[in-house]
Amino acid sequence: MKTLGAKAAAALDQELMSTCAFSIDQLMELAGLSVSQAVYRVQPLNKGRRILIACGPGNNGGDGLVAARHLYYYGYQPTVFYPKRSKNDLYQRLTKQLEDLDVPFVNDFQSALDSTDHIVDAIFGFSFSGEVREPFPSVIQALEQTKIPVTSVDAPSSWNIEDGPPKSGLGSCFMPTALVSLTAPKPLVNHFNGRHFIGGRFVGPSMAKKYGFEIPEYLGVDQIVEVPANVEKL
Amino acid sequence: MKTLGAKAAAALDQELMSTCAFSIDQLMELAGLSVSQAVYRVQPLNKGRRILIACGPGNNGGDGLVAARHLYYYGYQPTVFYPKRSKNDLYQRLTKQLEDLDVPFVNDFQSALDSTDHIVDAIFGFSFSGEVREPFPSVIQALEQTKIPVTSVDAPSSWNIEDGPPKSGLGSCFMPTALVSLTAPKPLVNHFNGRHFIGGRFVGPSMAKKYGFEIPEYLGVDQIVEVPANVEKL
Repeated sequence: MKTLGAKAAAALDQELMSTCAFSIDQLMELAGLSVSQAVYRVQPLNKGRRILIACGPGNNGGDGLVAARHLYYYGYQPTVFYPKRSKNDLYQRLTKQLEDLDVPFVNDFQSALDSTDHIVDAIFGFSFSGEVREPFPSVIQALEQTKIPVTSVDAPSSWNIEDGPPKSGLGSCFMPTALVSLTAPKPLVNHFNGRHFIGGRFVGPSMAKKYGFEIPEYLGVDQIVEVPANVEKL
Repeated sequence: MKTLGAKAAAALDQELMSTCAFSIDQLMELAGLSVSQAVYRVQPLNKGRRILIACGPGNNGGDGLVAARHLYYYGYQPTVFYPKRSKNDLYQRLTKQLEDLDVPFVNDFQSALDSTDHIVDAIFGFSFSGEVREPFPSVIQALEQTKIPVTSVDAPSSWNIEDGPPKSGLGSCFMPTALVSLTAPKPLVNHFNGRHFIGGRFVGPSMAKKYGFEIPEYLGVDQIVEVPANVEKL
């Protein structure tokens, strides 16, 4: 499977929002919708409806906020953990849209874990590098240790986009149940052995060609497609 | 079925984009996505993939542009008739997104009709009133006369939002195959006897209550739901 490195992913994202004329509102809506559709498959409604969405401070968190809204409409009971709220207008609007639906926002991730059936990890995405800042280390640790299924958005948070999980320490044992690669898979998927979805049904053939990846075969009106795990080396 | 009059529909739309904090990019993406999902049901891929999308100068046309893009990704061959292009930045961006996919834009509606399997009528929506301006009278007339199935977006173009089809003259015989009511059905649905879909899976309970309509029961991850025709009086 061809993948998109961290720099290429950032360049493609920029190009979508400049030359390709997408607005970030539009892309985030489609990204969050993809995530919600993956969660619907990994965590069917009859297996427990309580979904805890952990949102980071950037675009990955924004995707999580959109996903939470769609999950609400599907009949789930989303709860959002969003400790580092951005002053960015878009994120504030996405937050307001959830508040209007009476979706609860919680401050204590540990206790929220006791009453959820599934977790969405929307903490860090393809632009993550380096260290996990407060208050997220304890959250990553909890994600590593929990038995509750986790769906990660674009990247398992704390993983290096190119190299995958840290060799040791925080995040080194984190293996989510599912991963939704947005736009295109990143090299980290070579270290991932859970259920893998791609959500990028808004990238056209010319962009895929330019950036050297293949558009997977989506079915029907789906915004996502499940692809085989990519861990050939194991 | 409870419906939303023209003034109430305009007020709700305004409220979604102010108090409810949605951006028009976001709402139009969801509206166009709903339309594309309805077309997918009315015109299955194996019944002919060529879709002619007739876009008006306003938001209805914008919904059509978004639908055309999603239809492309589903495997259809969309063609767009968009004779009155707005200088509005959003519509220009939606147009660019289609151009990047090599979706053809045509100037002659009549000849485009000869090579399509389905038509999307995204000319006028809930804010239409009064007269059909050039170049649309001949287009409406063609929609009235054609045997090709038509899916109308929010309203059969030329219909009065409250009273339905004009009593006589242009549009009085226009009965599309399908209608996608966006946000909530308008009173004109009482005069419509084709397949009726609602696409409004972004309106929460408090707004539905305030505006006095019921949220239909959507299934799965669908953005639309088909409801029985509403013509009780016939």
